Formats: sequence, structure tokens, C-alpha cells
Amino acid sequence: MTGEFGRIARYFRPLAADLPGAFALTDDAAVLSVPPGQEVVVTTDTLVEGVHFLPRTPASDLAWKALAVNVSDLAAMAADPWVYTVALATRPEIDDAWIAGFAGGLAAAQAAFGLVLAGGDSVGMPGPLSVTITAQGLVPAGAALRRAGARPGDVVFVSGEVGAGALGLLAVREELAGFAPAVVAALSERYLRPAPRTALAPVLRGRATAGLDLSDGIAGDAEHIAAASGVALDIDLGRLPLAPAVRAVLAGRPDLWPVAAAGGDDYELLLTGPTDLPAAVPDGLPPLTPVGTVTAGSGVRFTRDGSPVTGLAGWRHF
Amino acid sequence: MTGEFGRIARYFRPLAADLPGAFALTDDAAVLSVPPGQEVVVTTDTLVEGVHFLPRTPASDLAWKALAVNVSDLAAMAADPWVYTVALATRPEIDDAWIAGFAGGLAAAQAAFGLVLAGGDSVGMPGPLSVTITAQGLVPAGAALRRAGARPGDVVFVSGEVGAGALGLLAVREELAGFAPAVVAALSERYLRPAPRTALAPVLRGRATAGLDLSDGIAGDAEHIAAASGVALDIDLGRLPLAPAVRAVLAGRPDLWPVAAAGGDDYELLLTGPTDLPAAVPDGLPPLTPVGTVTAGSGVRFTRDGSPVTGLAGWRHF
Repeated sequence: MTGEFGRIARYFRPLAADLPGAFALTDDAAVLSVPPGQEVVVTTDTLVEGVHFLPRTPASDLAWKALAVNVSDLAAMAADPWVYTVALATRPEIDDAWIAGFAGGLAAAQAAFGLVLAGGDSVGMPGPLSVTITAQGLVPAGAALRRAGARPGDVVFVSGEVGAGALGLLAVREELAGFAPAVVAALSERYLRPAPRTALAPVLRGRATAGLDLSDGIAGDAEHIAAASGVALDIDLGRLPLAPAVRAVLAGRPDLWPVAAAGGDDYELLLTGPTDLPAAVPDGLPPLTPVGTVTAGSGVRFTRDGSPVTGLAGWRHF
Repeated sequence: MTGEFGRIARYFRPLAADLPGAFALTDDAAVLSVPPGQEVVVTTDTLVEGVHFLPRTPASDLAWKALAVNVSDLAAMAADPWVYTVALATRPEIDDAWIAGFAGGLAAAQAAFGLVLAGGDSVGMPGPLSVTITAQGLVPAGAALRRAGARPGDVVFVSGEVGAGALGLLAVREELAGFAPAVVAALSERYLRPAPRTALAPVLRGRATAGLDLSDGIAGDAEHIAAASGVALDIDLGRLPLAPAVRAVLAGRPDLWPVAAAGGDDYELLLTGPTDLPAAVPDGLPPLTPVGTVTAGSGVRFTRDGSPVTGLAGWRHF
């Protein structure tokens, strides 16, 4: 088994090749030049085996998701991905093949999301695997999208499609055995390899009034915008843009609708802004679907086909 | 026990009060404005219970050390501390009192080192405690101190005093029971609460030619400078500036000299630069002691009183 320095050189150094200030991961720290007029957006998230991901998750999928959940927070601030650091705590029996898979997942994810590795740390520990990533983005000064900023009269939007994250967890746990393999595969893929909506960031800057990413489930996430903005949100869950694979499952298991609608783990964006915000999204990017309105007041009211919906549960540790 | 949002609000939000762009830790990410002409220096380090710190380490000491080891990497790059994020993975039985102590340690450390909290994550997990901090500093563009840069003719320096980190570990493990309580206390304090040499950063910029922090022990750390700079280092370990408490222990236990000299965990700086570099250090700051010379060639030669010293072991997981 390669030692720590050998592992860094072999598996992680290539991920920093496009960042001269990372010094090929051979110095105490990386040096980053921020373009004039840009601000830095920083976020950090930890994924723990058995808490945030299932044991035996393939290393490459874990790496992808760990980077994706962080980059999603950058997208929620309308920031463009820039650099990240990774701290990996591995069980002693983790071998080079696992590390190679992990680095491969990071390579695929950073290429897809548009950021590069700036540094990291790797430790062996007698406990569950955990990955902490700190991701940084760039945004023109003053243009970061906040949770505060929604105003009465704004429309509430959801990007892309929701529901596949929460149903995807059921899929990887083999709890959707009766459905078509293509449906189950689509859900699993979305759960394991979410796609943060970074491509929308430039569209949202200066147009959206508030936003966050749907990681914990729409119930709590919508409440965050209402509280931070000092407004009320009325959301019609019947208008949520459900993914085709989600609709396929719900046709046979309508009891799963609350899970699909509010389970989270989708990494889509919940946004507020003017009625014409969707028209600003270029073809080929995830569309914005209007799902509600912002009014004076406080709190979030959920309805479905005109009836109140209460008791929605968001994401829970499994 | 307070929930995660409650804990953040109560214990961690005050640590971000001086950073408007942290938004009181209520948004997806923090937004940071970099002063014109400055570059950002970023580093990340994880401490794991039972690997990097002893079980039952007081929460406030753990917090201090976790921030200190990261800030030390900033000092090694001659960067001024700026902001940090913290990811805390706690065992389920960790209670609010522990969290309060941890936040208190961070508060003391960030005030001492001159940086502020920008964000974080907190997860419960069925395993050992671990803390991952990503620290960021600022340095005038182009002025970061690298490991590469030492030139033949330079002098090798060590800042402050060494030896107390490694002997301090013995002290907290109660393996120095025969020594004066004041000696043992001084060593423990230095082990638990190292002082990164951030105050030297402005002095080193434009003057020192290479540097890193003595975290893993001088044997490996000196080798890093030699390799990165493409030079040889001759270091006289007899000239190492040993702390008074270290001298007191070595008087009774001369067999511990290799541990004190090369055990690491001191977070002093190993530097190269011109002969007159120490004269640039203002009174009241840790002095720089010449301990060797840089010559053409490769590798590191250690001597003590003129005799070669080999087989030095650096820091190991306990």
C-alpha cells in the first residue's frame, strides 16, 4: 500500500495540475489569485459513512457526491465554482484501489462542475469513512444570491426536476424492486451523482431575489427563505416539476408522493424572482418552474390541488 | 440537547460576528472580499481523536490546536490569518457543554491568531471525534513564502523554541511524573496550545527565501525544503533553541534528546534566508536562531557537536 505522500503524488496531484498556485500539492498551502472585481464564496460540508451515504458506496460515487453537495451551495449563491480542498478520513483497510476510485470520481466531478483541487489532507482513523470538502466560488462583487431578498409579488421557482434524490435513496436500497430497471437506474444515478445547477448561476445574478439549494427538503428549505426574507411563501406542491422516473414510480406507489415532493437530496435550486425569470434561462439549461408566490407575512403554506398539505418531513439521517 | 441549528446559533454564530459576509451563518455560504493586491492562501488539516489527539482532551484545547495547526501553515507561507471554516464530527454522546467548550476554545484561538469564522458543518457520527479546519490567509501578491527558494549561501533558521511539543505529549500522558510541576505544566501547555508564528509573517515576506512549519519533525521537514529547493542543508542540532522546560527535562533524561530535537509538533518555523534575517525581527517577537547552512547538492545532513546524527524519527501517530 502506498504511503500518504505517495498517494498524494499519484492520485491527487493530477487534480491540481491546472492550478499553478497549488504547487503540485507539495507546499504548506495553496496561493490563489482572485480576479479583480470578484468576491470569494466559501462553503464546507462533510459526508459520513452510515449517516450521509450508505456503506459500500463506490468510492467514485462518494467523491462525486461530496463535491456536488458543496458546489450546489455555491450555485445557490449564484457563484461560479473555482477551487476546493478535500479532507479524507479513511478506515485502515482502505486500499489504493479505493483511493484510485475516489480520485477518479473527483476528477470526473471537478471537470463536470468546473473547479480544481487546491489542497487536502488524508488521515487514517478507526471509524467510519468521512469526507469534508471546502469549496470556493467566485461571484462579481455584490452579486451573490442570498436567502434574504424575496419580496412580496415575487414568484417562487424550482429548477430542473425534483423527487429523484429521495426516491433514488430507496432505489439504491433496493426498495423499488418492482419497477422497470431503467426507472430504478435513473433514480439511483440521480441519487448517487447529483448535478449541481452551476450553469444557472450567471443567469440568476442580478435577476433572482433569493435562493438556496434543495438539499434538506422543500419544507425546511422554503422556511429558510421565508424567515431570512421576512415574507410568506405559498407553494403549490402539485406544480413541482417531478422527474419522469419519479412519475413512473408514483403511478404505482402514490403513497410515496410526500417522499418525492419533500424528501430533498435533489440539489435543485429554490428561487424567488420576477415572473419573467424563466425566460432568461438559455435553451439547454435546466428550466425554472413556477411553484408559488411570495406575499407579505411569515411562514410557508403548502397546498396540493388547492388543499393544505402539512406534516412534510425533510431529509433524515438513515 | 440543542439541535444543530440551535447549536450553530448559540455557540458558533458569535465567532462569525466580525465578518459581515458570513451572514450570521444563516446562508448557504459566506461571501469574502479580498483586498486589492492580496492573494488568498488556503490550507486544510484534520485532527482525529486517538490519532492526532488523546481521547478526553478538553474540548477547548482541541479547538485551539485544530485552529493552530492550520494557522501555522499560513504562517509558513508568510500569510496573515484571515478566515476559517470548521467541520466537526462528534460522537452521539457529545453534549452542549462539550460544544460550548469547543466554541470557547475557537473563540480564544481566533482572537489570538487574528482570524474569524466564515462557516462550518456539524455532523453526528458513530466513531471518533474529528475536526477539519480549512484556514485562509492573505498575502501581498507574489510574496508567499515557498518551500522552494533556498539558495546555496543561505543560513537555516528556527523560530522561537523547539522540543516542548514532543515532550509535552509525554507530559500529558503523565510520563514525566518525576519532574517539577511547573516544568510539566509548561510542556503540557505548549503541546495542547501551540502558538503559530503568525507575527513573523510580515517580517519574512521579501526576506526569507524558503520556509515551512515544524509539525512533523525537523528530519522530514528539512528534507522537504532541500528537495523543493534543489539544495543541501547542513543542520547542527546542537544549536537548536530548546525551551527552558525542555532543558530541565533533558538534564535528568538525556535519552529524550532525540525526541525533543526531532519529535515535531512545535509549530515553529524552519526558514532559510540571509545571515542578517534575525535582525529584521522586532523586539518581543520570537527570535530566529541560526542552526545550519544551505549548500549546493541535495539532502540533509544533521550533526551534533560535530558528529553525524542519523535515524531521527519524526512525529508518529500514537
